[in-house]
Amino acid sequence: MKLEEFAGKCGEWLRGSGPESDIVVSSRIRLARNLADYPFIRKCTGLDRAAIEKTLRDRFAHIALFRDVTYLDVNGLPDVDRARGVAIDPTEQFSVMVNEEDHLRIQVMHSGLDLQAAWEQINRIDDLLEAQVNYAFHDRLGYLTACPTNVGTGMRVSVMLHLPALVLTRQIEKVFRSLHKISLAVRGLYGEGSQAMGDFYQVSNQITLGKSEAELIQQVGDVAPALIEYERKARQYLIDESRRELHDRVSRAYGLLCTAQTISSEETMQLLSSVRMGVNLGLIRDVEIPTVNQLFIHTQPAHLQKLRGMELDTADRNIERANYLQLHLRGGSTDDGMGKN
Amino acid sequence: MKLEEFAGKCGEWLRGSGPESDIVVSSRIRLARNLADYPFIRKCTGLDRAAIEKTLRDRFAHIALFRDVTYLDVNGLPDVDRARGVAIDPTEQFSVMVNEEDHLRIQVMHSGLDLQAAWEQINRIDDLLEAQVNYAFHDRLGYLTACPTNVGTGMRVSVMLHLPALVLTRQIEKVFRSLHKISLAVRGLYGEGSQAMGDFYQVSNQITLGKSEAELIQQVGDVAPALIEYERKARQYLIDESRRELHDRVSRAYGLLCTAQTISSEETMQLLSSVRMGVNLGLIRDVEIPTVNQLFIHTQPAHLQKLRGMELDTADRNIERANYLQLHLRGGSTDDGMGKN
Repeated sequence: MKLEEFAGKCGEWLRGSGPESDIVVSSRIRLARNLADYPFIRKCTGLDRAAIEKTLRDRFAHIALFRDVTYLDVNGLPDVDRARGVAIDPTEQFSVMVNEEDHLRIQVMHSGLDLQAAWEQINRIDDLLEAQVNYAFHDRLGYLTACPTNVGTGMRVSVMLHLPALVLTRQIEKVFRSLHKISLAVRGLYGEGSQAMGDFYQVSNQITLGKSEAELIQQVGDVAPALIEYERKARQYLIDESRRELHDRVSRAYGLLCTAQTISSEETMQLLSSVRMGVNLGLIRDVEIPTVNQLFIHTQPAHLQKLRGMELDTADRNIERANYLQLHLRGGSTDDGMGKN
Repeated sequence: MKLEEFAGKCGEWLRGSGPESDIVVSSRIRLARNLADYPFIRKCTGLDRAAIEKTLRDRFAHIALFRDVTYLDVNGLPDVDRARGVAIDPTEQFSVMVNEEDHLRIQVMHSGLDLQAAWEQINRIDDLLEAQVNYAFHDRLGYLTACPTNVGTGMRVSVMLHLPALVLTRQIEKVFRSLHKISLAVRGLYGEGSQAMGDFYQVSNQITLGKSEAELIQQVGDVAPALIEYERKARQYLIDESRRELHDRVSRAYGLLCTAQTISSEETMQLLSSVRMGVNLGLIRDVEIPTVNQLFIHTQPAHLQKLRGMELDTADRNIERANYLQLHLRGGSTDDGMGKN
């Protein structure tokens, strides 16, 4: 998953509230659904896709819960007959994508560890949609999807975890191996390059077939507290064994973010990760978690380019990013030195 | 030369004023002198040394210029018959050491490039002393000294230069080689270890015999403007070719000094060197040169230990140093985060 993809869809997690939000950034469930009356996207003609989009937008209008959603037409101009769109609710907790890999992708994201609430919400939305359209459903297999890996429940349950102490203490690989053994997927959060950044990891189910929705949620829901516990133990270990070094690390990270005049996305993510842990451990007190969460997103290339209203090359992005960080961490001054304000 | 030795003697340069003081930290002249009536220090008995010290202190009292000097007895307790002392004038521009390598070591240090004034001052002090005591002097050789390398004028003329841009652009070795060719010595400023630190270099005469004082001063005095010019060109090159990177470097250095929770002497010197250049180039505006100059000295082990009134091991010194830097760069707060105050 690309960071901007993740961030662009739902901003709810930025609040940084919710259970265990020092470690669990967000809980997310998505359902893949298709209309029985049309071929899967890859077999669709332009007319098919236009018809699907028209049908779905029309049906959305009949659902009370969708009354306040914003519908964005995401057609690119050179690719006008893709007929893609996304409906986003005002709180950015849920979204419904049209004509992406499947005809419908419903997604709910909650801040912190809150899978049960996410499930209740997405289940209700799914029911409301199912009352309006004819889903492609097979009695034995369940929901039919464009990719066989989604057949059955069509569900992906995931939690996004911030695990800097497990990375620092070199335990993260061990954790990965044990998750793979129980068929859970772990993916790093990717930025501009292909390297996992900011110590963020998404844990999700790999299997969608042969298990009930409740079982899939339970599997991720059961493993999350164990991961939280591991990360907390690693943080406590760092504090007990090398509090000064940890404090030094997070404090310097903050210092660099406040003073760099040019900074890459990779370095920014790494430093913000240290700062995020530092704030959560009470080692840094001049910045708050929602600010840090927002900086993870807003220092990404797409956001910086939107801010300047133009495409920027890497060098210009690195400068723009440094200015943005100073502005938001040092309270309005992009001047040199610190302690202004 | 050890930094503390350099710093302990004369504090005048800390002001950071004087001609070319962005690059020339200080101009220093010292004269080695011995009393004709006693053997050189290495051949002295304890009684000899005590007699020398008594004679000289007594003679100092007859010199009007010495009226306000502070005389420090630097005898260590375990070595009580060394009978060493140092007279320091209130402005810390000049000092006279007794029973160090020679019976007398007269030193004058001025801020910036100011060899002529330093020469006039030390020549006057030397004349005043010579009127009071009988110097060991040989008609053909000149002043006799404990070490043959000082025989003749007994004079060492030196300028302390801050050359960060020549180091950054890797031209410093070339400069060294050309100085050696004209018989000038270049020595880095040493801190705790043996590595040259903070991009400070002392250029001085190697020859003391067969040339007049005026010639020796002229040799160092002639080369200093050339070195200043090289350093300025290197700074201008960095600004022209990579202003952003230079600004980034010096700004980050400042950020790290403000936020480190533990920091070595070596790293401190290196970062302060960047900050010093940054302030002189107008890239950092929240700190002034005298503060930076003082931090070079006051973050040294001896000063930190004096501050705490106890011996500190390396780890504790690194913590104390970080606290000291925060206190003096961030205006009184040793708390976390910046932008306080």
